[in-house]
Amino acid sequence: MASEQKYGAGIWHFATYVDRYATDGYGPARSLIEMIDLAGEVGDLSVVDINYPFPGGETDFAAVEAALKRNNLSVIGITPEIYTRKFARGAFTNPDPGIRREAHAMVTEAAGVVRRFGANYVKLWPGQDGWDYPFQVDHGDLWRMSMDGVGQLASENPDLKFVIEYKPREPRNHMSFDSVARTLLGIEKIGLPNIGILLDFGHSLYGGESPADAAQLAIDHGRLFGMDVNDNLRGWDDDMIAGSVHPIELFEFFYTLRKNKWEGVWQLDQFPFREDCVGAAKSAIGFLKHIEKALDRLDFDAMRAAQAKQDAVETLRLAREALFAS
Amino acid sequence: MASEQKYGAGIWHFATYVDRYATDGYGPARSLIEMIDLAGEVGDLSVVDINYPFPGGETDFAAVEAALKRNNLSVIGITPEIYTRKFARGAFTNPDPGIRREAHAMVTEAAGVVRRFGANYVKLWPGQDGWDYPFQVDHGDLWRMSMDGVGQLASENPDLKFVIEYKPREPRNHMSFDSVARTLLGIEKIGLPNIGILLDFGHSLYGGESPADAAQLAIDHGRLFGMDVNDNLRGWDDDMIAGSVHPIELFEFFYTLRKNKWEGVWQLDQFPFREDCVGAAKSAIGFLKHIEKALDRLDFDAMRAAQAKQDAVETLRLAREALFAS
Amino acid sequence: MASEQKYGAGIWHFATYVDRYATDGYGPARSLIEMIDLAGEVGDLSVVDINYPFPGGETDFAAVEAALKRNNLSVIGITPEIYTRKFARGAFTNPDPGIRREAHAMVTEAAGVVRRFGANYVKLWPGQDGWDYPFQVDHGDLWRMSMDGVGQLASENPDLKFVIEYKPREPRNHMSFDSVARTLLGIEKIGLPNIGILLDFGHSLYGGESPADAAQLAIDHGRLFGMDVNDNLRGWDDDMIAGSVHPIELFEFFYTLRKNKWEGVWQLDQFPFREDCVGAAKSAIGFLKHIEKALDRLDFDAMRAAQAKQDAVETLRLAREALFAS
Amino acid sequence: MASEQKYGAGIWHFATYVDRYATDGYGPARSLIEMIDLAGEVGDLSVVDINYPFPGGETDFAAVEAALKRNNLSVIGITPEIYTRKFARGAFTNPDPGIRREAHAMVTEAAGVVRRFGANYVKLWPGQDGWDYPFQVDHGDLWRMSMDGVGQLASENPDLKFVIEYKPREPRNHMSFDSVARTLLGIEKIGLPNIGILLDFGHSLYGGESPADAAQLAIDHGRLFGMDVNDNLRGWDDDMIAGSVHPIELFEFFYTLRKNKWEGVWQLDQFPFREDCVGAAKSAIGFLKHIEKALDRLDFDAMRAAQAKQDAVETLRLAREALFAS
Repeated sequence: MASEQKYGAGIWHFATYVDRYATDGYGPARSLIEMIDLAGEVGDLSVVDINYPFPGGETDFAAVEAALKRNNLSVIGITPEIYTRKFARGAFTNPDPGIRREAHAMVTEAAGVVRRFGANYVKLWPGQDGWDYPFQVDHGDLWRMSMDGVGQLASENPDLKFVIEYKPREPRNHMSFDSVARTLLGIEKIGLPNIGILLDFGHSLYGGESPADAAQLAIDHGRLFGMDVNDNLRGWDDDMIAGSVHPIELFEFFYTLRKNKWEGVWQLDQFPFREDCVGAAKSAIGFLKHIEKALDRLDFDAMRAAQAKQDAVETLRLAREALFAS
Repeated sequence: MASEQKYGAGIWHFATYVDRYATDGYGPARSLIEMIDLAGEVGDLSVVDINYPFPGGETDFAAVEAALKRNNLSVIGITPEIYTRKFARGAFTNPDPGIRREAHAMVTEAAGVVRRFGANYVKLWPGQDGWDYPFQVDHGDLWRMSMDGVGQLASENPDLKFVIEYKPREPRNHMSFDSVARTLLGIEKIGLPNIGILLDFGHSLYGGESPADAAQLAIDHGRLFGMDVNDNLRGWDDDMIAGSVHPIELFEFFYTLRKNKWEGVWQLDQFPFREDCVGAAKSAIGFLKHIEKALDRLDFDAMRAAQAKQDAVETLRLAREALFAS
Repeated sequence: MASEQKYGAGIWHFATYVDRYATDGYGPARSLIEMIDLAGEVGDLSVVDINYPFPGGETDFAAVEAALKRNNLSVIGITPEIYTRKFARGAFTNPDPGIRREAHAMVTEAAGVVRRFGANYVKLWPGQDGWDYPFQVDHGDLWRMSMDGVGQLASENPDLKFVIEYKPREPRNHMSFDSVARTLLGIEKIGLPNIGILLDFGHSLYGGESPADAAQLAIDHGRLFGMDVNDNLRGWDDDMIAGSVHPIELFEFFYTLRKNKWEGVWQLDQFPFREDCVGAAKSAIGFLKHIEKALDRLDFDAMRAAQAKQDAVETLRLAREALFAS
Repeated sequence: MASEQKYGAGIWHFATYVDRYATDGYGPARSLIEMIDLAGEVGDLSVVDINYPFPGGETDFAAVEAALKRNNLSVIGITPEIYTRKFARGAFTNPDPGIRREAHAMVTEAAGVVRRFGANYVKLWPGQDGWDYPFQVDHGDLWRMSMDGVGQLASENPDLKFVIEYKPREPRNHMSFDSVARTLLGIEKIGLPNIGILLDFGHSLYGGESPADAAQLAIDHGRLFGMDVNDNLRGWDDDMIAGSVHPIELFEFFYTLRKNKWEGVWQLDQFPFREDCVGAAKSAIGFLKHIEKALDRLDFDAMRAAQAKQDAVETLRLAREALFAS
């Protein structure tokens, strides 16, 4: 029986990148259409998350739709780019109210694009909202602006879902929405039903969380609206190939999703700076399929019983048996 | 005008310690009475937090009261020892309900001691509650047990305050109450007015938080019931002398307290493994008094204005001018 | 064909532990004889590393030898306890020359024990040699004392090998011999042939090294005299069950050893605080045997070719195919 | 008496930056001439380190020299850009020998520029030399290529100094020259007198070193050829304003330099992404001048005596008295 699990990716997986050293980029820039065609080459992807404004200044919706169609892809979410130069000092938390209004306007436009594509959500990743230095901000004001910015949008667009992708840091030295608990605390304070969490496995991991615990907490609050995976060395958002460093915690993460019957798309959020992007996606999905089979092999009842005893040796034995099957 | 700020310390500041290598301890064991007399030697301490059962098996309350009295000390809180051998696999989250009941019984007894001393709170530091390994626990169950354990006690003792001292890890590889946001999320879920946070500056710092931000968040939720300070190298709970590594963030932390007119005791939670304990306490308090004066020097209006602009260079200038005055 | 790989463990794997919170220990104390019998229960162990003075004050050599014999164990190394109370402020780097002499005397005695057992080496782990605070030490002096302490011993005992087990920190906030490169730099400076490195996988990992790279470097300097494994969360020396968190880097580590035809014992250095010690050892060795088979399956030529191209996707594919074989 | 200490900066301090999110940059691009004029505005800078090829494609040497002259600046070093797109997979360690030759050619050209400006050194920062993934490289080969690349250049240009600026990571997940000890080990192996270290305070700090210890080690090997400062949160190369987070360790670093009579330039390596670059430089230099005065106030004899006793409380008292003088 073929897997029914749906896979997706942020379209930036198929971009090329710049950083503060390789300012000429890790490769020639690609158009959105090229990225979509590369996503199609992977073969296992059903959905993509697309930045807005579209990469490369693309404005031809019909061309985008055609590219998606010929690659059998649909749009799961739109990520407004509220972290570029204009928003360098913050989007929702910018000290300048004019810039805050521009952030609001850009997300509102992105909401329209979500409707047009029939996508699932507007993804909010306010990566420039936070602080760099001790004493730089009034922390109470900053947090209120973070919640107000999201709350206003969710309240104005009750027909849509908004997902917050929290992250400890980068590009800001400290991001406002830095952890699963902080984000849930803010969401509960805002008090609207259409705000949830997009849980990035790597952000959780390098933030010192157990991604499985973070997923469970978000689920228990009814707020796990999406997720994506990758890997890192626990000190930074390296966005490496999923499972390349932490296969066991990745397995525990998916175990937690299945145990809770969470049935969303398994998405990739990788940045293959120096690797072939199609190859990196295939590598990740190959391993995710291995995990799917391992979940089929795993004895859930025995795992539950061993977890009830908090028996580290036995739970590890069960997990290994399923994951490293021979 | 003499400072009116009250200072305090965990009585363990005046203990000697063991660890997994120096199993014979960093010095000869001390009785509680000896510790209290050492606390008295510091000269600036008004209050202490005492473990229960009393260190060294002390059971003579009258002797303890006499020792406190002759050193002009009162008791601010009682810390039940829910992290010793019996609770090695957890107190509130122990898989064995019998042990969970014993934890409850010990804290209930500690509550009686709080009443007897007229102290401010029962301090809960469930350092063994959490997990070590991927897959070891059912994260949903564990978190519910964490909240239930605290909630039951707070509900049974409505006349007392309970403060939770969160910490990322140690001795468990991951503690249930690991951060300010997670703890507040749990407290809000429990929904009782007499549960708050004891914010340990070092726990916040090495957990990747800004302690000033953590304090503001707890204050904005009406839950900052106590605090203590120390320092570390941002990777572990080193419990070093306050201000020895991060004087600027320590200053920002106290700035945040004063700005919010938070007027509790400034406590020490240091572990001078290899240092003279009285000297280490004096060193910390000397620097805290320097911070008090720096707060008097600081131009709060100018700081507020610069923070409203999120101007890192100007806020740093103001902070430095007050802290490194020449 | 049965595996010919020899396995070993530090005898402390079978001890119980204390830490600064569970001062009454994670279980009742065990005698050295009991520990040896527990090591024997594992079934796959051939050698042990024993602390000196012997744990629990054991002084009956004949009894120890008998216990070893009945469990088919021999002694690979002796670890003098130069990190207990007396050496709390340092062994080779203690500011008191009298204590430095005592450290020297204790190691000299341990050298005698190595000879008596026909063991391979004296293991030096000067865990208290280093510093805690900025400004505390003259770094030049401290490093010279570190090298002199080891150099004198190696020079006085040319018939024996001395292995240094470096570690970033704990119990000191910073250890003198903190990394593979620093230790090699010191060893080259001392310039004696009988000093080498005991590479602890976990120390390397949480120190930010690649353990495989560290092993290669030590081998290329002719100084990899021993090694042991465990696992951690990359922030502390958690001494968890080998392979429980980082199976891929563990596999790369052993790949590097086999590629270089390094044929020593695979040892465990785990601290099962809350787990059954025999079960934790079996769990680790079970996975190490899985790794042995994975090494047999791995296509070394293909790996070499892919590494020559530094092709991350292809090397990962080869490693996964061998490790997660289905 | 005016300070005689010379100050310098990497010219990139006055650039604008891009990163992987703000791909349109944190501000409009600046020409090298504009950067030099901004450096001149700081008022206290005597020297700059300039990238080569010159930023913005500048090729008019005479114009650069005129700009330097009118701002009273001279060139201390030239940093060849061996980390841009062409070198994304490595410079000296690139798997393609053709790219390795191009790296060699670019550095050779930069050496010519050093001669032309009468600068002190060629600065080598091979930020793309290293690895990202477990199993990706043959660690022995990679390290040999790292040493060979530097060794060949130093041997071909015996009239010039080459300084290696080590760094734990970024942009590579792990850099070959990752620490002071590893770099010294490589330099000693190469065995040429004209290779030294450019010690970046922040790289040392977030690599888990004590920068003071790193400086002492490099000095004791006769290899401390240069240094620069900044600050960070100990987890990443944040390149913040010097002294904004770790003033005490910064003070210890300069104490170590003065104690050893190391008399080079005090340089800045900051990346003021969101701050005014002239203001950020002035802020840092203002604090460095405070440190100069604190060094004048510091009782070196008392410090030496207290360090000989490794007395943390007393050394901290002396340091504080000098740094936080009131």
